[in-house]
Amino acid sequence: MHSIDKLCIIGLGLIGGSIGLAARERRIARKVYGLVRRQSSIEEARRGKVVEVATMDPEEAVQDSDLVIIATPISSMERIATSIKPYLTCGTIVSDVASSKKQVVRKLEKIFHPGIRFVGAHPIAGSERQGMQAARAALFEGAPCILTPTHGTDKDAQKKIVKFWTALGCRVSIRSPREHDRIVAAISHLPHFLSASLVNAAVKALKGEKMVLDYAGSGFRDTTRVAASDAEMWVDIGMDNADEILHAIGVLEEQLAVLEKALKRGNRPAVRSLLSRARTIRRKFNSTPADG
Amino acid sequence: MHSIDKLCIIGLGLIGGSIGLAARERRIARKVYGLVRRQSSIEEARRGKVVEVATMDPEEAVQDSDLVIIATPISSMERIATSIKPYLTCGTIVSDVASSKKQVVRKLEKIFHPGIRFVGAHPIAGSERQGMQAARAALFEGAPCILTPTHGTDKDAQKKIVKFWTALGCRVSIRSPREHDRIVAAISHLPHFLSASLVNAAVKALKGEKMVLDYAGSGFRDTTRVAASDAEMWVDIGMDNADEILHAIGVLEEQLAVLEKALKRGNRPAVRSLLSRARTIRRKFNSTPADG
Repeated sequence: MHSIDKLCIIGLGLIGGSIGLAARERRIARKVYGLVRRQSSIEEARRGKVVEVATMDPEEAVQDSDLVIIATPISSMERIATSIKPYLTCGTIVSDVASSKKQVVRKLEKIFHPGIRFVGAHPIAGSERQGMQAARAALFEGAPCILTPTHGTDKDAQKKIVKFWTALGCRVSIRSPREHDRIVAAISHLPHFLSASLVNAAVKALKGEKMVLDYAGSGFRDTTRVAASDAEMWVDIGMDNADEILHAIGVLEEQLAVLEKALKRGNRPAVRSLLSRARTIRRKFNSTPADG
Repeated sequence: MHSIDKLCIIGLGLIGGSIGLAARERRIARKVYGLVRRQSSIEEARRGKVVEVATMDPEEAVQDSDLVIIATPISSMERIATSIKPYLTCGTIVSDVASSKKQVVRKLEKIFHPGIRFVGAHPIAGSERQGMQAARAALFEGAPCILTPTHGTDKDAQKKIVKFWTALGCRVSIRSPREHDRIVAAISHLPHFLSASLVNAAVKALKGEKMVLDYAGSGFRDTTRVAASDAEMWVDIGMDNADEILHAIGVLEEQLAVLEKALKRGNRPAVRSLLSRARTIRRKFNSTPADG
């Protein structure tokens, strides 16, 4: 297909690495470059055939790129954007993969405007594993990807980013940065922080980790799987999307209050209603082997 | 091995059916009977070779049994115990599989005392699937099983129940009914009710289920998998173990309060500490393919 001549991915972790593998497998770009921070990553990228050229030189990585995807942790994005800007050709399209968007989009638009066409994007894909060794070409197949254009976003650039993520296998949709942040707070950030809080609560309730490790079954393991994820990445997300996460925690606390009241009063119909409602919705997700 | 001449399982759902399959595969009893409520279950048990004889007649099912396992929903256990008692030979051992123990053990001990030797047990195994069609012989392999004897429990009967669950593949341990209920509240009941509350909260935060279904990724799916379980069974558990579940919810709410404070103040080290602690513990669970 090769609709892109040179693609540059900044940061070859789980997401960046998977973009490289998928872009190469699906022949989305004629050349795929990756910008990394360590010599060992250059070697790892070469061994894994993650990109054609991995380099630590920002100029070599981004110059003459048609599309640059920033796939670093959120807390590095501003610095990276500022450092690559001098090497970008006017009109280049830059996108990102940050899990929270309101602040990131505002900051990156400011850095790139005018001249560079920035389009915010967030592929909702991932795993509790991380780093290049966890990257795989199929990561984005069927995954949602939310684009978060603003009134300043170039329409042609937006179309190209829709095409790019669609070609990688995503189901692309458009939301404002604020809508995006509210959505992911509810379906990704809240589950994550809740999962971590559940691990800590179980340990606290049982006065140490021993009994948790001894007795936890598949229910506990599934419910807390995401708590094994990279903490630093989630600290970034928590700081960046704090308002919406706090809103989502508030909604959850209301649900817990309803449950507590029902349990305290021995109100069987109320407990049943809460569980049945959740069950009906949860069962609408397509089953996958991992769900079996 | 055949250390038991006649085993009777009351209720052939996921747990009862799996006991039947495992007991037959591992030749733990010479004859395995099952007591069911519907003609269709008799046919299903025959087709699946779940037990040798499935019947709706309590007398036929339990008479001359060395061991009777009550594997019905918690809310039926008292009724079942009362109805089978007249057909039990003096000295017969009866056990159960209830997920909460303080109240169940007290009620069943009262019904069976004196004459019938009751030993409470809870194999911590299961899945969000249910019914005989989900039963499998390997369900208990490596799973914890908690026995909950009291001062009135017959020591010989207790030893035989330890041997029984060990033979089915479980890691058996002994706890008081109260300790048991606190443990499972933290590692099983809290995760379950939290998972259901999370589904309901996400739907409420996003004003309907559409966006939840459209955007939820693997994190949400894992964290809420158990919310797809049979609601009625969990209503029973919630009612029966309400005090300990309320205690566990309280501990979780304290954790959420710490998180909220940290997010509100933009306290990066506090958020990091919470996530790192959970991650360190969660990563101590052995990885399984389902965790990958």
